[in-house]
Amino acid sequence: MTSEFDLIGHIRSRVRTRDNVVLGIGDDAALLRVPPGHDLVVAMDTMNVGVHFPPDTDAASIGWKALAVNLSDLAAMGAQPTWCTLSLSLPESNAAWLDGFLDGFLALATQHDCALVGGDTTRGPLSICVTVHGLVPHGTALRRSGAQVGDDVWVTGTLGDAAVALAEWQRQSREALLHHSREDGNAGATALRHSLERANPASSSTLRHRLDRPTPRVEIGLALRNVATACIDLSDGLVQDLGHLLAASRVGALLDVGAIPGTAPRDARLAGGDDYELCFTAPPAHRDHLAALATRIGHIDAQPGLRLNDATPPPRGWDHFR
Amino acid sequence: MTSEFDLIGHIRSRVRTRDNVVLGIGDDAALLRVPPGHDLVVAMDTMNVGVHFPPDTDAASIGWKALAVNLSDLAAMGAQPTWCTLSLSLPESNAAWLDGFLDGFLALATQHDCALVGGDTTRGPLSICVTVHGLVPHGTALRRSGAQVGDDVWVTGTLGDAAVALAEWQRQSREALLHHSREDGNAGATALRHSLERANPASSSTLRHRLDRPTPRVEIGLALRNVATACIDLSDGLVQDLGHLLAASRVGALLDVGAIPGTAPRDARLAGGDDYELCFTAPPAHRDHLAALATRIGHIDAQPGLRLNDATPPPRGWDHFR
Repeated sequence: MTSEFDLIGHIRSRVRTRDNVVLGIGDDAALLRVPPGHDLVVAMDTMNVGVHFPPDTDAASIGWKALAVNLSDLAAMGAQPTWCTLSLSLPESNAAWLDGFLDGFLALATQHDCALVGGDTTRGPLSICVTVHGLVPHGTALRRSGAQVGDDVWVTGTLGDAAVALAEWQRQSREALLHHSREDGNAGATALRHSLERANPASSSTLRHRLDRPTPRVEIGLALRNVATACIDLSDGLVQDLGHLLAASRVGALLDVGAIPGTAPRDARLAGGDDYELCFTAPPAHRDHLAALATRIGHIDAQPGLRLNDATPPPRGWDHFR
Repeated sequence: MTSEFDLIGHIRSRVRTRDNVVLGIGDDAALLRVPPGHDLVVAMDTMNVGVHFPPDTDAASIGWKALAVNLSDLAAMGAQPTWCTLSLSLPESNAAWLDGFLDGFLALATQHDCALVGGDTTRGPLSICVTVHGLVPHGTALRRSGAQVGDDVWVTGTLGDAAVALAEWQRQSREALLHHSREDGNAGATALRHSLERANPASSSTLRHRLDRPTPRVEIGLALRNVATACIDLSDGLVQDLGHLLAASRVGALLDVGAIPGTAPRDARLAGGDDYELCFTAPPAHRDHLAALATRIGHIDAQPGLRLNDATPPPRGWDHFR
């Protein structure tokens, strides 16, 4: 496999279509039909090698994660995934790597019936940019801005696993891959990693799977329509992302640190990135229903900012440019 | 300016909205409304430094071109631009560079009333990924596949200017920037560059402007609805891109090489990339009307493939992985 058009043809040969795709891969643009009564939901995220995944990550996991982080944004809006586009920058044409990448990407796309309808392949440092499209009935999209005083605060899944896995990978690779190490003067993140490394990961392969193959909570997002008052996905850590929700809603929250689900250390559960769980708020009337989907970790109050029920200040989350 | 959220906030502060944007930058995803009776048209293209633009390209031109190459895809579909998303990978946070980039990007976005509604900023080698959205009334999108025997072949603007400018830049920078030179074993492209360098560019700054600030032919694309039988934008050179149109339409074409518009040498007009003009086909009944928009360069016949009316074989176009 050598040419750009062979690459595109190969991707095209592996792709499934779905309803509302008038024209998929193979023209200057895709042609799509939004059904009446629905709004279009669009999210876009890029993953770069060494920044968003360790350099030793297998191709299938890179493909999975590149789509997962985008589907997680749709989940946070309560949107049903429909279509995606993929822009793949590769240092060289490599058929085996591309097939592995597509294995992961398309496995997740098929799971959510999200049709790959376009994009491009270019030469450059390994980088994967994905745009996802989803649909919501008019007026039902979840936003960050609707949390009300008295609402409960909930999170799905467990938090901090990916951060522990990343710290473990960094510890193991420090000597072998010293030149790849991401030391960037981010004192907060470094301190977080050091504290994580003192933890004893119960099962590093399970945790590594949480880092490499995050589960976008699409079904839960759909179930939260007309239930949650506000929602955000957790990519940069609970403290930071919940902070965005609180700021957008002009409210504050008090969290019960011990209630935050997971086996990771406190700081990883509070500030570890890459979880791709949902954090949302909902009136107490929904508690019984929601207990099957998520864990209640606190409540919204009127005082701006985030407070914890233990004495230690919250660690900071991840910021690409800090 | 230091943090990722400052970057996003700064971009947000400079962005205009437009109708049918329910929710723009600032949540997990954008929320958009497609008006009844319209299809959504989606294109996505990435530009990497050193591959898609010379390393000395100014930030505003990079911003302009990153959007222009995407709008050109919408133009080729006959779509009205509406919204775009931007994923920007930057080696470091640089406020002056970002403002320059936004100057170019937003100038073109404003010109076409294309609202920037989302995306992300990440750390990595300079790379710009853009997804554009446009609208067409049901059934009016232009495609590559509709060319009919007897149709005329047309191109907008002039061809080959960007290729001449690129060759001139490469000549000038060969000694100073030898380590940046793109020598990749692509013998066809190298031969093309060498032949171009023997040409004497009339005005290198005008040509460089054609390379750096291509004009997406959006208005012409709109005028071609219900007129053109097939359309494609020229990013990889006339021979290659028209070849895609002919293959999709299962027809052939005979071109009058002397009629291909522009002052660039024959091979640059035939195979130079980065023009972002439109190539389209239309029945002869439309000649009078179309002569104000484009130049007629040949006609469609039944014999598959592309033939030229001079004796020299056509040069090959650009391929990122060849």
